[in-house]
Amino acid sequence: MTARRAVVLLSGGLDSATVLAIARSEGFLCSCLLVDYGQRHRVELERARLVARAQGVEDVRVVQVDLRAIGGSALTANIEVPKDRAESERGAGIPVTYVPARNTLFLALALGMAETLDATDLFIGVNAVDYSGYPDCRPEFIRAFEGLANLATRAGVEGARFRVHAPLSGLRKAEIIQTGARLGVDFALTHSCYDPDPRGRACGRCDSCLIRREGFRTAGVADPTPYAT
Amino acid sequence: MTARRAVVLLSGGLDSATVLAIARSEGFLCSCLLVDYGQRHRVELERARLVARAQGVEDVRVVQVDLRAIGGSALTANIEVPKDRAESERGAGIPVTYVPARNTLFLALALGMAETLDATDLFIGVNAVDYSGYPDCRPEFIRAFEGLANLATRAGVEGARFRVHAPLSGLRKAEIIQTGARLGVDFALTHSCYDPDPRGRACGRCDSCLIRREGFRTAGVADPTPYAT
Repeated sequence: MTARRAVVLLSGGLDSATVLAIARSEGFLCSCLLVDYGQRHRVELERARLVARAQGVEDVRVVQVDLRAIGGSALTANIEVPKDRAESERGAGIPVTYVPARNTLFLALALGMAETLDATDLFIGVNAVDYSGYPDCRPEFIRAFEGLANLATRAGVEGARFRVHAPLSGLRKAEIIQTGARLGVDFALTHSCYDPDPRGRACGRCDSCLIRREGFRTAGVADPTPYAT
Repeated sequence: MTARRAVVLLSGGLDSATVLAIARSEGFLCSCLLVDYGQRHRVELERARLVARAQGVEDVRVVQVDLRAIGGSALTANIEVPKDRAESERGAGIPVTYVPARNTLFLALALGMAETLDATDLFIGVNAVDYSGYPDCRPEFIRAFEGLANLATRAGVEGARFRVHAPLSGLRKAEIIQTGARLGVDFALTHSCYDPDPRGRACGRCDSCLIRREGFRTAGVADPTPYAT
């Protein structure tokens, strides 16, 4: 029996690195999709390549989408990334780092790639716990996208049923780190910072760095990240 | 009262030129989104700019997405565009010119742009009659995307209800042409050919040219297109 192929969205962060390890542990032959969307933290694309290589993935595609033309986020436009926010502040509302319709776009690209590969399994590292402010990380969004995928595609018309796997959906960052550690993910390759310095080093102070640091601490796993502060 | 803003997907073809005219006739202040997705028929992007200018649109954005990295269509990959097919052949199944998940992707981009503009109305020129082979032109796909949009976005979470207008959905090509003609669309600016010659001239023989020619003939409207054959 040949392994079923899956398309795994890879960002270079520790979440998607863990998702890739989960997909492989479930027996999927993984093709990785990296999206270069004009993000400020472009170092993550290089990290995503390293993560894919470290996990033995042969099929890695990079799609360029220049979201700067439509603007609207601290991750793509010239809006300051918030620093040193307490957990209570971070939890309030949708953060400025929310990229409009980003996961809809990423899943649309993954869906197109899946169709060309005759795959119906997509993996995405969304997480509804730590990123509760992002609407497109919620399980109901994921379910709605599966329904759309079945209507949107030739494969769906012909009877295929797409599945969007979001295995981190109910996990806290510490649980994700423990899962990744158990599956042998090399976290030193991953990058989380929203505002790295010119050498690509994590700031240690943006929401993403703060969540990462707390996650490693809570998980009891050594954090290999060389933070700037 | 200020006009409501809408995002109109513009391709350079006569369908979306007509959709833009419809949106304007309904009182929307239109922002146009052009997607440069590595299509073989790139002349259409230039035509889309001309169409937007001719209809007085000030806000025109071009998003580049290189779909060639994920392949899989005669419109982006090196697959031959079929020529001189009879209507009966054209109607059979999903054509090779189907681009995997294209409309999902286009609507995702339009949705992101709409969010940054505080708009909740999207216009797309899909047509379920002449392009019945394309799954992502069907009304059920459009309705599913509206549902997804409400779940995917900050605006949706805050109570906004997105509407995807597909005003051509139930029209035949001849009816679209009659509608456009009535609204003053300059069809000479529009481009339909899947396989134009190096000077951008329509081949006259691909499915899209054949449907266009028949449409003008049936509509009783003069076809301004200089076909190569």
